[in-house]
Amino acid sequence: MLVDELQTPALVVERAALRHNLDTMTAALPGARLRPHVKAHKCTSLARLQYANGHRSFTCATIREVEALASAGLGDDLLLANEVLDARRLGRLVEHGHRVTIAVDSAETIRAASAGGVHEVLIDVNVGMPRCGCPPEEAGRLADLARRAGLTVRGVMGYEGHLMLVQQEDERRKQTEHAMEQLLAAGADVGGDIISAGGTGTYAVNTWANEIQAGSYALMDTAYHKLGQPFQQALFVLGRVISVSSGWAVADVGLKALSLDHGLPSIDGAEVWFCSDEHTTFKSDSMPPPAVGDLVRVRPAHIDPTVALHDTIHLVDGPQVLDEWPVDMRGWRQR
Amino acid sequence: MLVDELQTPALVVERAALRHNLDTMTAALPGARLRPHVKAHKCTSLARLQYANGHRSFTCATIREVEALASAGLGDDLLLANEVLDARRLGRLVEHGHRVTIAVDSAETIRAASAGGVHEVLIDVNVGMPRCGCPPEEAGRLADLARRAGLTVRGVMGYEGHLMLVQQEDERRKQTEHAMEQLLAAGADVGGDIISAGGTGTYAVNTWANEIQAGSYALMDTAYHKLGQPFQQALFVLGRVISVSSGWAVADVGLKALSLDHGLPSIDGAEVWFCSDEHTTFKSDSMPPPAVGDLVRVRPAHIDPTVALHDTIHLVDGPQVLDEWPVDMRGWRQR
Repeated sequence: MLVDELQTPALVVERAALRHNLDTMTAALPGARLRPHVKAHKCTSLARLQYANGHRSFTCATIREVEALASAGLGDDLLLANEVLDARRLGRLVEHGHRVTIAVDSAETIRAASAGGVHEVLIDVNVGMPRCGCPPEEAGRLADLARRAGLTVRGVMGYEGHLMLVQQEDERRKQTEHAMEQLLAAGADVGGDIISAGGTGTYAVNTWANEIQAGSYALMDTAYHKLGQPFQQALFVLGRVISVSSGWAVADVGLKALSLDHGLPSIDGAEVWFCSDEHTTFKSDSMPPPAVGDLVRVRPAHIDPTVALHDTIHLVDGPQVLDEWPVDMRGWRQR
Repeated sequence: MLVDELQTPALVVERAALRHNLDTMTAALPGARLRPHVKAHKCTSLARLQYANGHRSFTCATIREVEALASAGLGDDLLLANEVLDARRLGRLVEHGHRVTIAVDSAETIRAASAGGVHEVLIDVNVGMPRCGCPPEEAGRLADLARRAGLTVRGVMGYEGHLMLVQQEDERRKQTEHAMEQLLAAGADVGGDIISAGGTGTYAVNTWANEIQAGSYALMDTAYHKLGQPFQQALFVLGRVISVSSGWAVADVGLKALSLDHGLPSIDGAEVWFCSDEHTTFKSDSMPPPAVGDLVRVRPAHIDPTVALHDTIHLVDGPQVLDEWPVDMRGWRQR
């Protein structure tokens, strides 16, 4: 099949850029040093490439993601880096021989892990972003509580999400060090082997965690691209110019095909004006000017919620569609 | 099933509010005066209620929406209010006896309609928003071109989308009048019976179009709610508090469960700080304060792209889940 024959809008990934990104990260953080986060791509076909590169442990944000990886035979060591109040679906995976670890940050989530049949946890520590995680000084107490509930505490995690897009690398490193000092102190109180943290924004500067939860590096987006990291933008939403007016053109890619939470998408050589449900209006200075029927590549500012809007990733090489990968980890319900 | 048993996040619609909204709009614009836009809900089960209320013609934004309505037996008169360059999937519906009309705004889209086997079109006219639609003065020429290509031109459409959220009703009416003057002039040049325009924001002030393409009224969102219209917010994303810290709480509803393009979502009695992929961090002044495990209703600012993130709408009445409706019009590919 040819790229030109795809029904637009379509989520498209360039094979060479994806390959470059996967191998660049594996060289920097081989094996267990990287625990790839699958929330950025939600695709077990892509996770399989990460596994083949030697990363046999994965990070997940939802129960559904854990289940899909387990079904795909990638269940060696799955971390749900998020709190849940009902862990029974995860307990069933443990029963079937998959290794599942959950983040806990409260007595309630510890009880849920234990009641659901999950035996291993990490203590989730707040390292500066107002979201989940206990205060660092409470981590040891929670670990004791978890052990009294019969759970194995494998260590700590603490996501420095507020630092991912700090533009200056020196400043990012300094602030990451401060966040990780808190995580290491909590880790000393908690015990266990794992100090899990980080993301694509801090993978190169976070030398304190012993595993990094990066995910966006594989496909990239324009927000991360601005940091100047050695990863290429591999993902775009393919659209078609459906209308041309004097002063602007319109592509059939809109809010239902990409997410605006990190800002407007980008089109090479053009200025994006706004997005509607099924449209992106842009001004192009290209010569010749855009014509009705032209294909256009729209690059989202934030990939994670963009991928979640699609059911398929099309792997392409130039004009050729090489493969169709289901976005099989999206949604929250059991399948 | 009880609401409390739903896997969160979950898209939930209150039956009484939906009923109120459907009946209020039907009383204002009975029968063919309303051509409900299905892009807001993407759910044939909900479209069936609109049909039962006497609205037998529908507006769609995608080929997939047209196909799903036809499959559901709701294909009496389907308008794709959007431009396409390949109309073959629509032509197959026409072959099977469904009535399908497409918006065209260029020679290329006219050719596509004709080549694809669609016989009826509306001339799409730009009435002030920089998106699709030809300049009003070119509508007559395009209609001639369409007729020469063997197409029946049913009239014109022109969406005053830039006026939907004008806060003052008088001002909204005045600007709508100006937009519709252009559409009526184009309509006089084009011929045909249909003057199609409008949306939830202008349904009450647009007295010039003879059919209104409103969709959001059925479920509503916080952006439209601010206009003070007689519709109730019927849709929310149900979440669960998964973490409570000193000063904030976190629900398991994030960017993958609601869209931020119209701004942050709302939680009654709380201030929403920010959304991450799977989290909303908020500060609540409620007494007692939020506790881990509490259910929370998160109201999106914009429903259309929010619904597109979910596979199911749960119809509820208080604590009871009455029905599960597939969001069966989402995506773009043929099923």
